[in-house]
This record gives sequence, C-alpha cells and structure tokens, in this order.
Amino acid sequence: MEAAILTIGDEILIGQIVDTNSAWLGQKLSEIGIKVKKIFSLGDQKEEIIKGLSQAISESDMVIITGGLGPTKDDITKVAIAEFLGVELFFHHETHERIKRIFEKIGKQMSSSHDSQCFMPEGVTILKNSMGTAPGMLFNYKNKKIISLPGVPYEMKAIMEEVVLPMLVDESVNTIIHKTILTCCTGETVIENRISDLVSSFPPELKIAYLPSLAQVRLRLTATGNNLEAIQKMINYYTDGISERLSDVIFGYDDSSLENELQKLCISKGLTIALAESCTGGHISSKIVSVPGSSEYYLGGMVAYSDEIKKKLLHVSEVTLHNYGAVSEETVKEMVDGTIRIFNCDAAISVSGIAGPGGGSTEKPVGTIWICVGNNQKKETFLLKAGKDRNKNIEIASIYALDLLRRFIIKNFI
Amino acid sequence: MEAAILTIGDEILIGQIVDTNSAWLGQKLSEIGIKVKKIFSLGDQKEEIIKGLSQAISESDMVIITGGLGPTKDDITKVAIAEFLGVELFFHHETHERIKRIFEKIGKQMSSSHDSQCFMPEGVTILKNSMGTAPGMLFNYKNKKIISLPGVPYEMKAIMEEVVLPMLVDESVNTIIHKTILTCCTGETVIENRISDLVSSFPPELKIAYLPSLAQVRLRLTATGNNLEAIQKMINYYTDGISERLSDVIFGYDDSSLENELQKLCISKGLTIALAESCTGGHISSKIVSVPGSSEYYLGGMVAYSDEIKKKLLHVSEVTLHNYGAVSEETVKEMVDGTIRIFNCDAAISVSGIAGPGGGSTEKPVGTIWICVGNNQKKETFLLKAGKDRNKNIEIASIYALDLLRRFIIKNFI
Repeated sequence: MEAAILTIGDEILIGQIVDTNSAWLGQKLSEIGIKVKKIFSLGDQKEEIIKGLSQAISESDMVIITGGLGPTKDDITKVAIAEFLGVELFFHHETHERIKRIFEKIGKQMSSSHDSQCFMPEGVTILKNSMGTAPGMLFNYKNKKIISLPGVPYEMKAIMEEVVLPMLVDESVNTIIHKTILTCCTGETVIENRISDLVSSFPPELKIAYLPSLAQVRLRLTATGNNLEAIQKMINYYTDGISERLSDVIFGYDDSSLENELQKLCISKGLTIALAESCTGGHISSKIVSVPGSSEYYLGGMVAYSDEIKKKLLHVSEVTLHNYGAVSEETVKEMVDGTIRIFNCDAAISVSGIAGPGGGSTEKPVGTIWICVGNNQKKETFLLKAGKDRNKNIEIASIYALDLLRRFIIKNFI
Repeated sequence: MEAAILTIGDEILIGQIVDTNSAWLGQKLSEIGIKVKKIFSLGDQKEEIIKGLSQAISESDMVIITGGLGPTKDDITKVAIAEFLGVELFFHHETHERIKRIFEKIGKQMSSSHDSQCFMPEGVTILKNSMGTAPGMLFNYKNKKIISLPGVPYEMKAIMEEVVLPMLVDESVNTIIHKTILTCCTGETVIENRISDLVSSFPPELKIAYLPSLAQVRLRLTATGNNLEAIQKMINYYTDGISERLSDVIFGYDDSSLENELQKLCISKGLTIALAESCTGGHISSKIVSVPGSSEYYLGGMVAYSDEIKKKLLHVSEVTLHNYGAVSEETVKEMVDGTIRIFNCDAAISVSGIAGPGGGSTEKPVGTIWICVGNNQKKETFLLKAGKDRNKNIEIASIYALDLLRRFIIKNFI
C-alpha cells in the first residue's frame, strides 16, 4: 500500500512553522509497512487543495491530510474535500453534542464558531479525537482512502495511534517489526564502528538506522517479512548481539527514556533522589517529572541559580566558591552534600556550568559543565566540555547527569 | 513570482529526518516577495522526481530542489534533471579542479566517488558552493527556473544567501511582509470573535492566520504588494487595531515568548524573581533559564515535589496542608511566602496541582492546578482546570503561571 501525506497551512509555506507532522506520519506508516511516496504542503486555498488532493489520490492508495480543521475561517480543508468528492456538507449532531460536553466539563460556553467543526462532508466516517474538538474524518473514494486529521500535533497523533494505525495494521499483509536500542553519551560513528561487522552480517530482511539526537543515538532495527515468528526471532538474535557488544552505552530499548529507566531503577531498589541544578535551571527536574509516577522516588530539587542561594540553601562554603568558583568539581560535590542534607534522600545530582552564550573565560569557556552524583559516602564527578549553544548545552548536560546517576545507582546500590 | 520547493530523499519520507530545509527556504523566499505555492518531498527514484518536477514547473515560475547531489549512489537528482530537460551529462572540469583543491587543502585524496559530482546536465549555470564540494545548479526552462541545491542545510543555505537570493531580489516585483501577534490563555474562537469585524474590513492584500498551540494563539498578518511602504503602513494600521482590541491577551510580537517578555519586564524594572514548583516540576524554571541572560533577574527555584519539602523548606504549615491539602489556594499562597523568604526576591510564582494521570479525586480531579504569584504584600491566585494529559497540563500551567506573574508585575511595579 502506498500513501501520500498532505499538510495544509500558509504558515508552513512561509516557513513560520516546520512541518513535523509529516515526519511523524512517515515514520509511523513505514513502521507498519506502508510506503510513503510523497509528502507535500499546500496553502489555505481551496482550489490548490482540490488539485493537490486529486493528483495525490491518483498516484497513491491513500492520502492523509493534516491541518485545516480548526474552528476559524482560514480552515478550509473540509470544504475542499466536499467539493472534490462532489458532496454537500451536513451538520453532524453527535459532534456538536460532544463539543458541547467538552466545553461544559471545563465550565465554558461553546462558541458559535465551533459550529463550523460540526459540519462534515457527506459520506464521512468519523475518527474519534480524544484530545480536542475537531474529529478526524475518513472517506472512501474509488477503493482508496482519504483521511483528514487536525494539524495540532498531539490531536493528530492521538487519532492516528488510537484509530487509524490499528485500522491500517488490520488491513496489511507484510509485517514489519522494529526494535530500537537506546544509547547515550557516545558518538554515532564510534557506535557504528563498534558494530560494523555485525551489521555487515545482517540478512537482507533486516535493516538498521542510526538516529542521533543530542548526546543520544537510537539504533532502530527493522525486519520485514510475512512470517512474524521468523522475523521476530531474527530481530531478537541481532538485538542480543548488539546489546552484548554495546552493553556499556545502552540504557534501554524502544520508547523508554533515561528518566524512565532511572525511575524504574530507583523504585525497584526503594531509593529516593533529589537535585541541585545551576546552569540546567530545572531542565533535569522537568525531565524526571514528565514521567507519570515520578513522585514515588523523586523528592524535589533546587534551582540554585545564584551563588547566594548555593551558599544559603545548599551550604556550599564561601571558601570553595572563592577558591575554585561556582563552576568547579569542589562546588558540585558540596552541592550534592547540601541536597542530601535538605532532602534526606539516598542519592543526588548536582550540576554547575556555563551554559552560554555569555559568562565564559579562557580557563572556563562556555560549555564547561561540572556534574556530580552520589551521597555523603561516595561521589562521582564528570567534567563535560560541551559547545557554544545555550539550550543544547542544557540538554546535553541533563542527559549526562541522568546517565551518571543511573550508572552510580547500578554500581553502588543492591 | 511563484515557487515550488522540492526536497529529495527516502529518509524524509520514512520520517527519519524532519525536512527543515523547506521551512527555511519558504521563509527566505516569502521575505523577498516570492510566493511559495507548494512544498513537496519525494524519494530517491528518478521517475518520481521527473514527474514531480514536471508537475511543479508547470504550476510555478520556479522550482527549487534540495538533496540528491552528494557523492553516494542514491543521489540521482542530476540524472533526473538531465532526463527531464532532454540533455546529456558532461564532465565539468572546473568543478573537478575545485573539489581536488578542497581535498588537497585538508590533506586528503579526492575519492573516485566524488567524480560523480563533476558531471552536470548540459545548459547548467553553476551556483558556487562555498561550504562543500557539490555546486548548486541553475537551469532555464521555458523562461522558468529550475534550481538544484545540496541537501546539507549549511551548504544549501550558503548557496541561497550568497548567490540565489541576491539574484532573485534583483528580479522581484512583489513584496510580502508579516507581523505576528502573540496571545495566551484565551481560546482561538474567542479571539476570532473579538476581532471578526476588523478582519472583515481587511483589504484584499492583507490576510490573517490563527496559529494555536497549548494555551497560546499566534495571529499572523500577511500583507502583499509592490509598494513596500504602503503595505508596511497597512499592516501597522491593522496590527494597531487588533492590538488595541486584544490588549488584555497580547503579550508580545513576532518571535518573542512569554519568558522573553517576562525577562525584559523584570530587567527594565530592576526586579528579581524566584519559583516554587510542585506539579510543574521545574518546567517553568527551565523555560525561564532557556533565555540567555536570565541570571540577571532569576534567582532560582524550588521543586517542592513532596509535602515534607513544602513544610521543611517553604514553611507551608502543617495545619494548612491538613485542612486544605497540598493542592489548594492556601498552600500556594504560603509557598509564595516561603519562596520570598528563602530567595529574598521581589516577586515569586508558586504552583501546586494534580498533573495526572493518577492522584485525582472527585473533589480535585486530574488537571486541578492552583497558581499563585506575588510577594508578602500582595498576591494573586488562579485555579486552572486543565485536562487529563500529564505533560500538556504541565505546559499549560507553566504558561498561565508565567502570564499571571507578567500581569502582576505590570500592575504592581512601576
């Protein structure tokens, strides 16, 4: 089955937003064996949309459209679809009732402009939107599918994952399975070199993709075939081989994350942790808290942005700050001690560095970041030499810090 | 002049990389008055590229192609262009000499796979690539332009900025300008209703788009015309009109953000602030710290995730926690007092709520979030009733909290 993806919105054409929906859709579709033939973006103009849709559906078995379903009048996808199909719009009472209930729940009045979201082209199959007001729509057209989804990413993703992908999987013949191996704090080329002989021995049904992001590389294995059991066995075999080879840099698999793994580890060992962040400014904390259930092991954190606060709250000594500076191994060690004292936790992370763009010196250039993990008895420190970009430095330091604590816990707690 | 943008690469279609080249090109072209009609991505298949190119050039005055000029064998853009134009490839000696010199400079041998980069379709005009080996190419086709650029972003951008954009500016007639108005904490439809009469009175050269994200709506005005001064005047006139009408919900313009505006405000008034976060878990802090220079006004924050820490560090009273609970107006007020006491700052934010998915009750369902801003003398509180999604709740609460403090400062500090 071949698909085209059409994203609608003037804001995409003038480059005000980057179209991330298409990449997400492309990934999800290819994961279930659907080949994406074309991705294209058009502005909020009915004639263009009709023409584009007509071209795309003639070339593919399915067109997935995102955008142009909101309540305001620059949204004209539905009108275009109706005109393309040669049908009228009708008022869909169930959708109206559903939107009304959503507004009642949050104690607000449904505005009249939401009425436009209740009009649907005839022949529609409603695709439930659990995250917002505008439902997705499915149309059958000459044994092909036209699927229209909202442009808001989390609404689009919810409809795809809850409704569209399960439906498409049911219809597909070939099976594609994936296994993703998660690594951090080691570069892509190093990893590639360490497993190049293994990868050369892959059978043709197995492929690998290296997906780097800041301080992380995900290795995605993809196996294709019509015998699920056989390709499952194959992917397991090579996953085990790679895992053995890269055991020192792998922290998890599939959709996990460092913060997820840390949480599982701490809860299983009955440990509590806390943080003292300077240059990362709460970023590590917000990563930890993004995982449901984090309150079971995470007691809290301190964003000790100023030296004053480092002294007053974390009891970093005046002498240490004077002799070594706030960005030093000595300071991050004392920050861990202060955090343990305040939160009475089993282990702590501290970070202090120069995120940039200002504040660097010859001795301590922008990107110099000290990390400490541990407790009163034992500590480990790490000097990260990152780059010049403030928000990249914050992200990279957060990953290194979470991984350092994860390793510390594995090594030091039974 | 109208343009189409074509990006080439299988990795885009399977979602392995997000196509950021198109957004950048869209922005640059619309800045010089060239309307982008379509953006599309195709895989590394010659027939598809020829078909797509042929379609696009029939609809537009210009097609800009990125990708498929590298030295590896999946790069077939040049072959496709030659076939589309009905010409042969020839060996371009100057390019060969240039690539050889580049390799000599870094002390390496030019590899034979680079030879393919020296073949060009007949009729080419070379566009100099100051950042890499593969040159850009320009073809005239029926008084229209086909421009082919490398897919590596910094090489593509260099050729555009040094060669293509100056050439296009020289030729262009129309100008497009944009103004973006930033609002928060008010729904898209409410905003649309409040300015609908103004929008109806827009001249045809002016358009508006509503761009919603979590708890925010951006209003983008776009004006087109051949008289820059006239359309600038027009866009200013309507921006002023909308700004007056929506003054209570607008926090900034163009590429700004709430945290940016808060920083400007605090620094201009010489104020310092600090935070006490419970359910947002450091997310507000990390937003504040993402802006360079935040240490000038941001002293730090406390992630008081457990009740213990709320009592011990922030001095929230046992009685308050017992009678009203951690998620209550009384608790967030005492959290602000505690934060002011610790950080000795001019104003503080506190947040306590149930982010979910667990922890809700009938009385306080998931999404119940109390926010307080202020100082010892004066406080404002807000009860946010958000949804069920943990990370959305955290983001929405962070935006409401930043905006509440921004308003508090405007109202209470000269």
